[in-house]
Amino acid sequence: MSTHRPLTVEHLNPSVLKVQYAVRGELAIKAEEYRNKLKESDHGLPFDRVISSNIGNPQQKGLDQPPITFTRQVAALMEWPALAELAPNAFPQDVIARAKELQEEIGSVGAYSHSMGVPFIRKNVAKFIEERDGYPSSPDNIFLTGGASAGVSLLISMLISAPHSGILIPIPQYPLYTATLAQHNGTAIPYHLDEPSDWATSVDEIEAGIQNAIKTGITPKALVIINPGNPTGALLDEATQEEVVKLCERHSLILLADEVYQLNLHRPSTHPFASFKKIVARMGSPIGLVSFHSISKGVSGECGRRGGYFECTNISPEILALIYKMVSVGLCPPLTGQIGVDCMVRPPKEGEESYELWKKETDTIHEALASRTKLMAAKLNALPGVSCVDSPGALYLYPQIALSDKAIEEARKAGKEPDAFYALQLLDETGICVVPGSGFGQKEGQWHYRVTCLCPGVEEYVGKLESFHRGFTQRYGQ
Amino acid sequence: MSTHRPLTVEHLNPSVLKVQYAVRGELAIKAEEYRNKLKESDHGLPFDRVISSNIGNPQQKGLDQPPITFTRQVAALMEWPALAELAPNAFPQDVIARAKELQEEIGSVGAYSHSMGVPFIRKNVAKFIEERDGYPSSPDNIFLTGGASAGVSLLISMLISAPHSGILIPIPQYPLYTATLAQHNGTAIPYHLDEPSDWATSVDEIEAGIQNAIKTGITPKALVIINPGNPTGALLDEATQEEVVKLCERHSLILLADEVYQLNLHRPSTHPFASFKKIVARMGSPIGLVSFHSISKGVSGECGRRGGYFECTNISPEILALIYKMVSVGLCPPLTGQIGVDCMVRPPKEGEESYELWKKETDTIHEALASRTKLMAAKLNALPGVSCVDSPGALYLYPQIALSDKAIEEARKAGKEPDAFYALQLLDETGICVVPGSGFGQKEGQWHYRVTCLCPGVEEYVGKLESFHRGFTQRYGQ
Repeated sequence: MSTHRPLTVEHLNPSVLKVQYAVRGELAIKAEEYRNKLKESDHGLPFDRVISSNIGNPQQKGLDQPPITFTRQVAALMEWPALAELAPNAFPQDVIARAKELQEEIGSVGAYSHSMGVPFIRKNVAKFIEERDGYPSSPDNIFLTGGASAGVSLLISMLISAPHSGILIPIPQYPLYTATLAQHNGTAIPYHLDEPSDWATSVDEIEAGIQNAIKTGITPKALVIINPGNPTGALLDEATQEEVVKLCERHSLILLADEVYQLNLHRPSTHPFASFKKIVARMGSPIGLVSFHSISKGVSGECGRRGGYFECTNISPEILALIYKMVSVGLCPPLTGQIGVDCMVRPPKEGEESYELWKKETDTIHEALASRTKLMAAKLNALPGVSCVDSPGALYLYPQIALSDKAIEEARKAGKEPDAFYALQLLDETGICVVPGSGFGQKEGQWHYRVTCLCPGVEEYVGKLESFHRGFTQRYGQ
Repeated sequence: MSTHRPLTVEHLNPSVLKVQYAVRGELAIKAEEYRNKLKESDHGLPFDRVISSNIGNPQQKGLDQPPITFTRQVAALMEWPALAELAPNAFPQDVIARAKELQEEIGSVGAYSHSMGVPFIRKNVAKFIEERDGYPSSPDNIFLTGGASAGVSLLISMLISAPHSGILIPIPQYPLYTATLAQHNGTAIPYHLDEPSDWATSVDEIEAGIQNAIKTGITPKALVIINPGNPTGALLDEATQEEVVKLCERHSLILLADEVYQLNLHRPSTHPFASFKKIVARMGSPIGLVSFHSISKGVSGECGRRGGYFECTNISPEILALIYKMVSVGLCPPLTGQIGVDCMVRPPKEGEESYELWKKETDTIHEALASRTKLMAAKLNALPGVSCVDSPGALYLYPQIALSDKAIEEARKAGKEPDAFYALQLLDETGICVVPGSGFGQKEGQWHYRVTCLCPGVEEYVGKLESFHRGFTQRYGQ
C-alpha cells in the first residue's frame, strides 16, 4: 500500500493564498476562454473579438500600437549583426552605428551581462536622468531590471523585515503592491487619494495612515507613490512632492517612486512631470529614494521585452551591495530589455537619419492617446450614474459607477463584488475586459472600473461601453 | 533638528543577509574590477584579459561561442518583420516561414503574452517533450519562464510553508538552491554525492538526509536532483532514477528535476539522458514532479535572452491555478526568451534550408565541448594533488585540490576559506575566475573549485591553470 500523499493547497506557503492580482484575475481568465472560443465557427458569442482593456499592453493584437521603428531596427541588428553587411540599405546609418556601438560594449545579446545590467547602458541611463532633472546621477546607483515590476518586488521583499513591517500604498493602487506585500508577509498601510480633487495625493491622508498603523503595532517602512497615478492618471505638483519628501524625512520612510508613466502626459495645460529624484536633490533631502522606470509604457510600449530600471538615491553602499547580491541570484535582466532601455534613454537626435520617423511615430502615439482619453472621459461622464476624472496622465481611466441596490443584491447573491459583477457582464456582452475597482481598492460603498485608453476605433469601442451601461441600468435600475 | 534615520542593513529583511551566491560572489566582483582596470594602459596586471570561468556563459566576450544562426535569424525577423520584404534574400525560406508563423500567433514581441507563455509555444514544448520521452505532455502543465532560475525560485517560494520546511539539496549543488531557500526562510537538507563513484547519486544518502532532518524537526517537502549535475557533470542512470522516484513516493516529496544540461552530454559511451518525466510516466508513479529546462545551456547558450520552461506532472489543477496567479504578478516571461524556447524545441529538420548550417553549428559546439572537457580533465588529473572526475555532462569540471596545512593556515589568517584563497590567487595571477568549492558545498576538509569548459585556445588556458597550480604548490608545499 502506497504511503504517498499528493501535494495539496494546504501544504503550500500560506502567503501564496493571500496574493491577489486582479489585473490578470477572474476577468482576464474568462477573457482568455472567450478568445479561445471565438476560434470555433459556431462560438455563439455576441461579439467577434475580445478587447483586453484590463492591462496597459499597447502592442497587443487588436490594439496594434506600432513599435518605434528605431528600437526594432537596433534590436534586429543586435540579434543578427551580419545583417548590417547582408542588407546595408535596409537600415539607416545611425541605426547601424548605434548597433555597432552597443555590440562593442555588450558582445552577444545571448550572453549574461553584469547582474545590474550592462555598465554602458547604465551610464546612458544616468545621463538621461541628469538631463531630465539637472542633478547628478551615477550608474553605480542604477539597476536595470526585467520591467519595473521585478524591481518593485525585489525592493519590497528586502524592506519587509517582519509581518508588522508596513508599506504605505495609495488607494486606489496598482495591485502589484498589495500582491507583493502579501507574498512577502508584509502589511499594506492604505492611504486614500481624493477623487473629488482629481485623485490628488494628500500628505494629511498619508500622515493619518501612518498614525493608524502605529496604533495597531505596524511599523511603516516605506511609502509608495505612483506618479502619474495608476489607475488614476493623476499628476503630482511639486509643492505636494516636497511635502511628501518632508513627511518621509519625519518618519524615516524609504520613498518608492513608481514613475513608469512619466512620458504619458496628454494635457499640455497641466504642470510638467517632476521626478522625485529632482525634488529630493533640489531639497538636499537625506531620504532614501528608489525611482522606477520602464520601457513598457511611455511611447515605447515594449511590454514583451521586459525592460526597466531603478535608481537608488541616498542608499548606502552596504545596501547597494546587498541589492546587487540579490539580483545576481537571478543572473541578469533580459538583454533585449536592456537594449530597449538604451533606445528609450537615447532616442534619435534632431539631424540624425532616424529622427524624422521617430518624431512622427512618437507624436502620433502621444496624440492618439490624448484624443482617446479626452473623448472616452467625455462620453463616460455623459452616462447616467457614471463620473470619470479626466486625468492628465498614464494610460487609463477609472470611472466611478453608481450601482443600484438591486444590482448590488444580485452581485452578492452571485458571490461577486458588485463592480466585478458589472465588469463580468460587460465582458459577456461586449468582449471588452476591464478590471473592477475592487482590484485596486476604493472607498466603502463606491464602485469603479479601470479601462485602458488603448484601442483603435475609439468611437465604436466607447459606443459598446455606453450601450452596455445603458442596458445594465435598465436591467437593474439606477 | 531632523529626526530622519537613514536605512541601514539592520532594517532589512534578515533573510537577505543569509543569502549566498558564490557564482557571482567575491571572486566575480574582483574579476569585474580587474576587467575595468585592464582598460587603463598602465594597469600593471600580469595578464591582459579576464576569463570568467565562474559561470556557464558560452557567448560571453572572450569565449565567443557563436549563437545558432537559425535562432538569431528568426529573432531578427520577429524584431522587425518588415525585413522579410526589405531583405528577402538575406534569410532562408524556412526562417521566413517560421517567423511568419510565430508572428501570426504572437503578434508583436513588444506585447505582454499570456503569463504562462504564448499558448502556441507551450504546445510546441509539449510536442518536444512527447517526442523526447514517448509519453503524453500537455501545454496546460507547461510554464515558460525567464530562464530556469526564475521557475526554481518560484517553486521553492511556494513550497516553503514554514521555517522548518526543508528541501533536499545535493552537495555539491548549484547555489541557486541554497540562496533561494535562504531568501524564503526554508531549510536546506543536504545529501552528499559520491565523488569516488564519479559523483553518483545514492538513494541511501538521500534517505539518511531525510532521517536526520526529521530528527531535528525539519519536514522534507521536496527533493532537488540536478541531472546532468552542476557542478559535477554526473549523469544518473535509469535504475537510480527509478529508486529516486520510489523514495519520493515513500516520503511524499515533490521532485524538482533540474535538467538544463540534458543536451550537454559529451561522452557517447555513457548511457543516454532520461528525463524524470519519462521515468515517472513509465512507472505510472503519482509523485508530483516539476522539470526545468533552459535555453541558456545546451547548444543554444542563449543566457542573455532569459528563456526556459518548467513542466508540472501530477500537480493538481488547484495548484496549477495558484502557480498561474503567482506568475501573473510578474506579467510574462520575456518574449525574446520565449522565441528562443520555440527555436530550441523546434530546430530545423533535415531537408529544410537551414538544416545543414544548424547541424554544422551544433555539431561543432558539441565536439568542442567534448574535446575541451576531456583534455582539461586529463591535464588537471596529471597535476600533483589534483583529482578530477571526468564527468560525461554539463559545462563544468569540479576538481578536488589537496591543500597543505600551510596553505590552509595562511587562508584562515586572511579570513578566507582555503579554496577561496586558492581561487583568489589564481585570479590575481592569471585573470582566470573560477568558483571555490565552498560555494557549492563539499565534505569537511576537502577543497574543490568549479571551472567551466568554455574557452577558445584550451591549451593556453589549461596551461595557465597548470603553471599557477605548480607555483601555488611551491609556495605553500603539498
